[in-house]
Amino acid sequence: MNRPIRRSGGRAARVAMRSAPLAEDKRPVRAGLPGGKFQALTDAEVTRIHHAALDALEQIGLSQAPPSGVEILTKAGAILGDDGRLRFPRALVEDMLAKAARNITLHGRDPKYDLDLSGTNVHFGTAGAAVHVVDVETNTYRDSTAQDLHNAAKITHALDNVHFFQRAMVARDISDNLEMDLNTIYACTSGTTKHIGTSFSEPDHVGPGLELIYKLAGGEENFRARPFISNSNCFVVPPMKFAEESCIAMEQCIRGGMPVLLLSAGQAGATAPAPIALAIVQAVAECLAGVVYVNALAPGHPAVFGTWPFVSDLRTGAMSGGSAEQALLTAGCAQMHRFYDLPGGAAAGISDAKVPNMQAGWEQGITNVLAGLSGLNMVYESVGMHASLLGFCLESLVLGDDVLGQVLRCVRGIDVTEDSTSIEAMKAVCLDGPGHYLGSEQTLELMQTEYIYPTLGNRMSPKEWNEAGRPDLIESAIARKNKILAEAQMKFDPEFDAAIRADYNIYFT
Amino acid sequence: MNRPIRRSGGRAARVAMRSAPLAEDKRPVRAGLPGGKFQALTDAEVTRIHHAALDALEQIGLSQAPPSGVEILTKAGAILGDDGRLRFPRALVEDMLAKAARNITLHGRDPKYDLDLSGTNVHFGTAGAAVHVVDVETNTYRDSTAQDLHNAAKITHALDNVHFFQRAMVARDISDNLEMDLNTIYACTSGTTKHIGTSFSEPDHVGPGLELIYKLAGGEENFRARPFISNSNCFVVPPMKFAEESCIAMEQCIRGGMPVLLLSAGQAGATAPAPIALAIVQAVAECLAGVVYVNALAPGHPAVFGTWPFVSDLRTGAMSGGSAEQALLTAGCAQMHRFYDLPGGAAAGISDAKVPNMQAGWEQGITNVLAGLSGLNMVYESVGMHASLLGFCLESLVLGDDVLGQVLRCVRGIDVTEDSTSIEAMKAVCLDGPGHYLGSEQTLELMQTEYIYPTLGNRMSPKEWNEAGRPDLIESAIARKNKILAEAQMKFDPEFDAAIRADYNIYFT
Repeated sequence: MNRPIRRSGGRAARVAMRSAPLAEDKRPVRAGLPGGKFQALTDAEVTRIHHAALDALEQIGLSQAPPSGVEILTKAGAILGDDGRLRFPRALVEDMLAKAARNITLHGRDPKYDLDLSGTNVHFGTAGAAVHVVDVETNTYRDSTAQDLHNAAKITHALDNVHFFQRAMVARDISDNLEMDLNTIYACTSGTTKHIGTSFSEPDHVGPGLELIYKLAGGEENFRARPFISNSNCFVVPPMKFAEESCIAMEQCIRGGMPVLLLSAGQAGATAPAPIALAIVQAVAECLAGVVYVNALAPGHPAVFGTWPFVSDLRTGAMSGGSAEQALLTAGCAQMHRFYDLPGGAAAGISDAKVPNMQAGWEQGITNVLAGLSGLNMVYESVGMHASLLGFCLESLVLGDDVLGQVLRCVRGIDVTEDSTSIEAMKAVCLDGPGHYLGSEQTLELMQTEYIYPTLGNRMSPKEWNEAGRPDLIESAIARKNKILAEAQMKFDPEFDAAIRADYNIYFT
Repeated sequence: MNRPIRRSGGRAARVAMRSAPLAEDKRPVRAGLPGGKFQALTDAEVTRIHHAALDALEQIGLSQAPPSGVEILTKAGAILGDDGRLRFPRALVEDMLAKAARNITLHGRDPKYDLDLSGTNVHFGTAGAAVHVVDVETNTYRDSTAQDLHNAAKITHALDNVHFFQRAMVARDISDNLEMDLNTIYACTSGTTKHIGTSFSEPDHVGPGLELIYKLAGGEENFRARPFISNSNCFVVPPMKFAEESCIAMEQCIRGGMPVLLLSAGQAGATAPAPIALAIVQAVAECLAGVVYVNALAPGHPAVFGTWPFVSDLRTGAMSGGSAEQALLTAGCAQMHRFYDLPGGAAAGISDAKVPNMQAGWEQGITNVLAGLSGLNMVYESVGMHASLLGFCLESLVLGDDVLGQVLRCVRGIDVTEDSTSIEAMKAVCLDGPGHYLGSEQTLELMQTEYIYPTLGNRMSPKEWNEAGRPDLIESAIARKNKILAEAQMKFDPEFDAAIRADYNIYFT
């Protein structure tokens, strides 16, 4: 090992070889890297939150379940009170936790994008229901459309560090709600073969929605074998109320073979308690009620434990998705998911900034890195989201790929092995060698496997930057976005696409 | 506790009371919050790095010590080899570690800014030797001046989340190096009463420098009792070489009563090994040599263990201070400091971006939050730094205060107590109350003590933002910078200042 480090004749060839695309398992970062090195809560604190959540389910319970839900839940052992609230004995919760699906896979339409929600495996993706698109060229907000949604799907397909595409915007150009739901599904699936998340707003839409989905899968059986679309269910209206319509839609999705996201989206200081710990208690209680619901209906049905408590700016009551308090809420939730060993999801990466500026950078960076280091399985809303979920920005989505690359590199952590701590490399350089590590064998070896490079982030010196005409980050993002969209392919073959367009009123091209 | 939550008549009065400035110990964040919930390394990995560092000191050692250093170190037990390298038996290192100062205080000129470097207490500040100022109004880089340095000190004084001011820029308008060193000291101390860091470039300057410093302190005794200026010593030139001149300057600073920062600033892939773990090994070995040096000369003299390994972009060899690899290096170093229980410092918050844009935000956010969560005592270069240390930006310094506020809130973590997890507050709202937590007693109580609000970060809705004329983040930063500078006071009284200016050639107003 104690060889002198020299620039040998074969160096250029080695560099060229190392500049070629790396095999997936050699890349410095990828979907599903294990997190968990940041622990916002101690074990005792996790247990305290767990017991408080069980107390809340037993003593407060949830109101407003639909009749079908009341039947499913009371049959399983929940108790309907005179006040109309369903209360959950802890034994019931524990029984259902034992039945719940673990280590589930959320499938991509292309299997290479399958997400393995085991342990602390971390995946980043989009989500949300933004009603605006941020136009960085005019510095304005406009209504989001089906075309915007489809474009976001296409862009996501091209971004290495965005691992799934959950509907991020509402197609506001479609006034008919069923047409909107169907267009949402097709806009997403025709843009990317990564895992898709959608969200039915009305129970009546699930039937026609599943009909389209089965068609896209080449048949119901195919879909049930590899369900590549999950449904995001806001099954509760915090605090501690079921959302009737959404519960009915959820039952139908489960029967139709769709994995569900059990989404509890309270807002600390408004619809959830202001103390971060108690907001987690409430979110956990609500999602545990969801676990009972799902497993009483269909034991072991794939469901993501979706504690998504948000944060209020307590001065104004407005939501603040980019805050440190949000980062802590999400990190704490991730630890609760691990305590139950359930596949879990929460929100991070939301910016309160209206445009992709420095504020957006620190908000997305801090909240996403805490989510990743906490080992959150599904980090929703992690890219593109501005104005606390009201605006989605395609250029920010492209820039977010860089943010997530850095975040994933942090999640991967420090490689400490006999090799990576062997002082032989130091001896070779200090005692016998050139006195520096530039171009050393070890340096070249690690160039692509241990270090990640930004696509848009600029690392030029001031001199180089000046000579390059002082490139602007947003201009670079616009250019990359346009290039991706120009090169993107429709993800169904033209004949199939034409058939869909013949049967449905599709609002995008 | 189970009281209904009502908007009682005294609410406005309570809100007003809570809008008043909070006592220091009630503020949601402050200097010295304990970190440590992120552990980049396992205990076994820490031990492995420690042993590798001891091996390196024993087998490789350091070359280029000045004659005085050779004398001090060999007398203590280091072995001078035929190759001119000083090697350190592990017993010597262990003995000196036992003598090293722990739980030191870095004093502010005003005691309220004292920094307690115990345990995992985290402090953020500036540092560096930028040669440019980033002018955000013209989007250009220009040479930095003594006035810029003084302005940065004044701004830092006004920023709650920047806890110390180490010289961040080189006063390039001063051609005489001694004049530059003296102006640096006065530019910093006359701008802020927070702890100051300076860096003598030549041994000959330490004498005149100390003379000025003693004058500023009102006498040598005063300074030795509360040394409010520390000296940053690049005492090594990695890999594994002492820096002769800097070592001599360090000896003089120590004799003069200045705390020292033992700074090892290798660059992974260039002057330090490319593997992150081995870069940490080298930095630890070099700083341990510094610990031996300091404690052999003056047992228990206050010194900060300054493992500052930087990162190369391995494609180009250029430094990348904003990278995830940098965040991990610094976080790993912080754990090594805790292993030795020594006061420690490292670099975070550097941006590779040339201007305070989204890239700057994610780079500063991610690297600073990892440093803070790791429990790094002194986070140097945490604000204002662009182009990988080549440019300092005053507007970015102001924005960085917001970044650090969010970071400190993450460091503070989740408050999990009986109160903060009691479901009584949920019962009050869900069973007997209004069904929401807005304006509840608990919400109002936490408004200022648990939540932190950005000064420049914008949380308006798109509608409000539009109505406010779509305020620009950089414009807001310029305005705040100008306001601070307009209101800032010289930190010595006018007569004293006049006397200094009579004795010295001062380049700023």
